Amino acid sequence: MTTTLANLKTPCLLLDQDKMRANQDRMNEIMEKRSVSLRPHLKTLKSVEAARYLFKDVKQPITVSTLKEAREFGRTGFKDILYAVAMTPQKLDEVIALRRDGIDLKILIDSEGMADVISQKSLAEAMPIPTFIEIDVDGHRAGFSFADGDRLVDVARRLNRHAQLHGIMAHAGESYHLDSAEDLREAALDEANKTLHMAKKLYDAGIDCPHISIGSTPTAHADIKVGGITEVRAGVYLFFDLVQAGIGVCSKTDIALSVLTTVNGYHERRGQIFIDAGWMALSGDQGTGGQKINQYYGVVCDEYGNIWPDLVVRNVNQEHGIIIVRPGVEKKLPYLPIGTRLRILPNHACATAAQHEGYHVLNSDNAVVNYWPRIKGW
Amino acid sequence: MTTTLANLKTPCLLLDQDKMRANQDRMNEIMEKRSVSLRPHLKTLKSVEAARYLFKDVKQPITVSTLKEAREFGRTGFKDILYAVAMTPQKLDEVIALRRDGIDLKILIDSEGMADVISQKSLAEAMPIPTFIEIDVDGHRAGFSFADGDRLVDVARRLNRHAQLHGIMAHAGESYHLDSAEDLREAALDEANKTLHMAKKLYDAGIDCPHISIGSTPTAHADIKVGGITEVRAGVYLFFDLVQAGIGVCSKTDIALSVLTTVNGYHERRGQIFIDAGWMALSGDQGTGGQKINQYYGVVCDEYGNIWPDLVVRNVNQEHGIIIVRPGVEKKLPYLPIGTRLRILPNHACATAAQHEGYHVLNSDNAVVNYWPRIKGW
Repeated sequence: MTTTLANLKTPCLLLDQDKMRANQDRMNEIMEKRSVSLRPHLKTLKSVEAARYLFKDVKQPITVSTLKEAREFGRTGFKDILYAVAMTPQKLDEVIALRRDGIDLKILIDSEGMADVISQKSLAEAMPIPTFIEIDVDGHRAGFSFADGDRLVDVARRLNRHAQLHGIMAHAGESYHLDSAEDLREAALDEANKTLHMAKKLYDAGIDCPHISIGSTPTAHADIKVGGITEVRAGVYLFFDLVQAGIGVCSKTDIALSVLTTVNGYHERRGQIFIDAGWMALSGDQGTGGQKINQYYGVVCDEYGNIWPDLVVRNVNQEHGIIIVRPGVEKKLPYLPIGTRLRILPNHACATAAQHEGYHVLNSDNAVVNYWPRIKGW
Repeated sequence: MTTTLANLKTPCLLLDQDKMRANQDRMNEIMEKRSVSLRPHLKTLKSVEAARYLFKDVKQPITVSTLKEAREFGRTGFKDILYAVAMTPQKLDEVIALRRDGIDLKILIDSEGMADVISQKSLAEAMPIPTFIEIDVDGHRAGFSFADGDRLVDVARRLNRHAQLHGIMAHAGESYHLDSAEDLREAALDEANKTLHMAKKLYDAGIDCPHISIGSTPTAHADIKVGGITEVRAGVYLFFDLVQAGIGVCSKTDIALSVLTTVNGYHERRGQIFIDAGWMALSGDQGTGGQKINQYYGVVCDEYGNIWPDLVVRNVNQEHGIIIVRPGVEKKLPYLPIGTRLRILPNHACATAAQHEGYHVLNSDNAVVNYWPRIKGW
């Protein structure tokens, strides 16, 4: 039996390849305009088949969030890979093994201690490990901030004893709390300028810093042009989601990812429609909870992706979701009988996709044209 | 190389089999005292190997949350299975196929429409499908409440045309919001008595209702004895978690499940310790957020499971967690250097376990004695 949208078992994950391609094209145009290269973060995609579909040239630099991703994407030909999670001593043997397998893996640190460990390991293995140092531009995560300028120089020197400072990288995670083009542009400029300021600290100390990497999906879309930045990282831009729509970098109709589900209960008196997608299929992510418009656990669409803007998944159990009319909206609950199939747009595409084994890939005619398994585990 | 706690790659999922066994024994004693049979919900466990370890006799009735679980547990010998998610017309062919494979699968409905569909299907397949009708005792989820007594009778009659009313089932989901033994006892009595009241509606109408099933982990632990209830369902009791500890049905030291992680950043000035476990390893569940004590994304233990009660995972990104001293507690952040291994106790064991491919099973000496893969997907 050929797989069609109509005979897919629910719940399952749908991916609109044409919307994804359009999102990719848009980002590529922005990068061209900014004359900077892109190192997409494949932690959202987590699929070798999807990566080969999107990036024909495996010379494409990529970012990953696990060594498992590095191994899998490396096997299929991608060699220029940044593992953008701070390194631990225990993971270094696997890093060496991956590099010996021909993957030009770069790693990330933000401490004197790990600089020494990596330098020693590079000496012992006669392999200078190319390493990024993390810069903190907004207190969102790890890395060295302005106050740590001298430590940055010290860590770079310790690294360069036997390893190799490959560059510095920043992530403007706080941009996720913004929602105006002006604020996003400011955050993007701030991310770029602070990172360049730290690069100058290295330059002034006579330390070569060949790569200056910044990025987050919101700041990557900002219309700025700053010389000196060598690459931008972004991940969720390929799928987009309700959080990104709330920030304002996409519209709900750009969202390429959704969860197909089936109505299994209709309770008119309580104003509730039950579906067979709970947190196991949607994730428990409430990323829009702090935004101007709370989308709860997702916005409802019909089976073909047409949005019901005032229907939201208000609550989730493991395998149940409860749809209601958006609080504050004076509308009658539409009659959607048991068996009706719906799509739910995700708050956070990375989290929702992670709940599934793979993507059922649709074209713009809603024909199922492919199945792309996801990379699981670490 | 033999697998030991020391050489497990992080992040990964740990399961203490002796704590799990003790949790199981405790529940079995309660059920004996209540003289009612237990139909454990294996949506938490989701592992054939774990189920065979815990339930030597495959005659043990079980509850599942997906048809995939029914197939996998059925293959290993469990035959008396309740699929406790409201049925849809599209899933009936798979139900029939599983029953033809020798699995005595029971299903669940709460509407006239599905009663007719299942009755017709039973006629067409010459197989009366044993069906539970869902009862709503506290407005938490689906099912018929007091006000729907007549509908219950009507639905039972429609079912019994060609299918078979197997019983009624309730789930006191609101008990998750309680935290005193007295309130839990009341909720448990309320769950039992309301369900019995609905059973009497059927009895008065001359309809046979052989099985009366209730349950939730909090109410299952209550010290009550109500005649007429034939079975109790509970799932998370095998692992327990911080939500259950907050409700008061277990202590933190009873929790059998944890996530092993490694420190990959220490920021004394910011009072933050970074670990390589984010929402991908811990889940984004914030189930204790509404409880008296907010455990944020989990409570920290050392590598051997000894609890640091004032260290919590305050924030999570995809592959990062940020540990801080519990807000309001005047303590200095302990120095845990990069490479230190920790365990994180989960808010919600079902959600945390679902983020992993399987369990690394430990005995009480913290020796790794097994690996139990989990059932994934639907």
